[in-house]
Amino acid sequence: MEKKVLTSETKVRPRFSEIDAMTIVWHGNYVKFLEDGREDFGIKYGLDYMSVYEAGYMTPLVKMNIEYKAPVFYGQEITVETAFINSPAAKIVFEYKIFCVKTGNILTTATTQQVFINAETRELELTPPPFFIEWKKNNGLEI
Amino acid sequence: MEKKVLTSETKVRPRFSEIDAMTIVWHGNYVKFLEDGREDFGIKYGLDYMSVYEAGYMTPLVKMNIEYKAPVFYGQEITVETAFINSPAAKIVFEYKIFCVKTGNILTTATTQQVFINAETRELELTPPPFFIEWKKNNGLEI
Amino acid sequence: MEKKVLTSETKVRPRFSEIDAMTIVWHGNYVKFLEDGREDFGIKYGLDYMSVYEAGYMTPLVKMNIEYKAPVFYGQEITVETAFINSPAAKIVFEYKIFCVKTGNILTTATTQQVFINAETRELELTPPPFFIEWKKNNGLEI
Amino acid sequence: MEKKVLTSETKVRPRFSEIDAMTIVWHGNYVKFLEDGREDFGIKYGLDYMSVYEAGYMTPLVKMNIEYKAPVFYGQEITVETAFINSPAAKIVFEYKIFCVKTGNILTTATTQQVFINAETRELELTPPPFFIEWKKNNGLEI
Repeated sequence: MEKKVLTSETKVRPRFSEIDAMTIVWHGNYVKFLEDGREDFGIKYGLDYMSVYEAGYMTPLVKMNIEYKAPVFYGQEITVETAFINSPAAKIVFEYKIFCVKTGNILTTATTQQVFINAETRELELTPPPFFIEWKKNNGLEI
Repeated sequence: MEKKVLTSETKVRPRFSEIDAMTIVWHGNYVKFLEDGREDFGIKYGLDYMSVYEAGYMTPLVKMNIEYKAPVFYGQEITVETAFINSPAAKIVFEYKIFCVKTGNILTTATTQQVFINAETRELELTPPPFFIEWKKNNGLEI
Repeated sequence: MEKKVLTSETKVRPRFSEIDAMTIVWHGNYVKFLEDGREDFGIKYGLDYMSVYEAGYMTPLVKMNIEYKAPVFYGQEITVETAFINSPAAKIVFEYKIFCVKTGNILTTATTQQVFINAETRELELTPPPFFIEWKKNNGLEI
Repeated sequence: MEKKVLTSETKVRPRFSEIDAMTIVWHGNYVKFLEDGREDFGIKYGLDYMSVYEAGYMTPLVKMNIEYKAPVFYGQEITVETAFINSPAAKIVFEYKIFCVKTGNILTTATTQQVFINAETRELELTPPPFFIEWKKNNGLEI
């Protein structure tokens, strides 16, 4: 049985202020593009910052890997493809591919890992919170 | 009688990520330099974010003017001179001068205006909060 | 005779990374929204960074004024209205209004002033460059 | 024989604008702290952006890994320890540790990998450029 993979696509037009002295997007600004992708995914499937916060949690990043394969230039339109990587752990893992809209070439790949902390006590949740299990069920994912 | 003017000086080394495709500091990044200056002033005289917050207030900006007279390049060291402009109003007004450390030339001038809002109710304070009047007294300023 | 005013509208969704500890958009991030508006205007009317650069010029900002009338929160959609303010000077002046999409309330007003510098020599142009006069003609503006 | 490891230390005071709605440093801003560390290392040992550029090269990032172990709060002073990881490849690899100045606890670890591209042709260098071999020799590192 093939596993279901939830994905979303986000078009991004880099800002002039995101271009560096090498006339390419500064590598640190990709973190914003990943967040654009993650948040669009969240809005599409109901896992955005506000929904998570209203459920009583915050989800800080604990790991981030980025591989820059080709630069992004000013005026170049890109698409962030965000895929939710399901696992039984108390974690949210996303994989990202950034494409050039014009050529379809992969420019960047990335992974992020988030944990759940209680919004009030700020303590780490060691098991998946009920709202997250519910969310998986509603979206046809294994628990 | 000459008025007392409180000032502070802050040395800033622009980051590579703050340089734009014209190989000069992107104009929006000066807002960070002004905040560096304002916060250094606050730490020197006891009017930093945390002190104000602990007194029960937040001080959002309501006005900002910047005049860019000469560009700042990568590797160029600059000094932000921050001066508190006293007035009887329920406002915090600062004037800034950014200098080139090497030549002493003025590169930028700026002004910001902040108001007081109650940190809990988020309501605007129409008169200077007691802690601010106290602060002025302690620093020998007119009320 | 009424003067023709060129305007453009840009929808912006503030990023999570643009929200500060007061849970509102950090005041310095509005500079990016103004640039979004200015660049959209440029793309609409042919005065974007790349067109200007290809004509042999760069247009650094020399003045910026922002008045913050109401905060912008996370999740709040805003519209930047960008208007070109025509004058015979060798300058590009824009006026901006930022609206709340939902209520239509004005949240921020701003003005920026840019000059022309020769992209190669980096010298200031004291008179309007030919391409700019041509641009005005093509868009039905007084010279 | 123990290998020589070049390291540098950089003190950083996070800016208010770098704090997010969770009142901790936004994860993407750590990329700036790593660049602060890398650039300080470069200035200390002669491998800063300008030196590399004057030698005819640019060194874009191709990989970045960050592990966030504990959050950084506003007002918390941190130290970035930057270590050059030597290898015979045409790459610059750095490992970073971010410490809390007060407690000495490790808050973050990170790795970055950079390649050499010819500043003029923008082509990738497949072997270590002469200036880089020279730099290693001058600093007592294996080639």
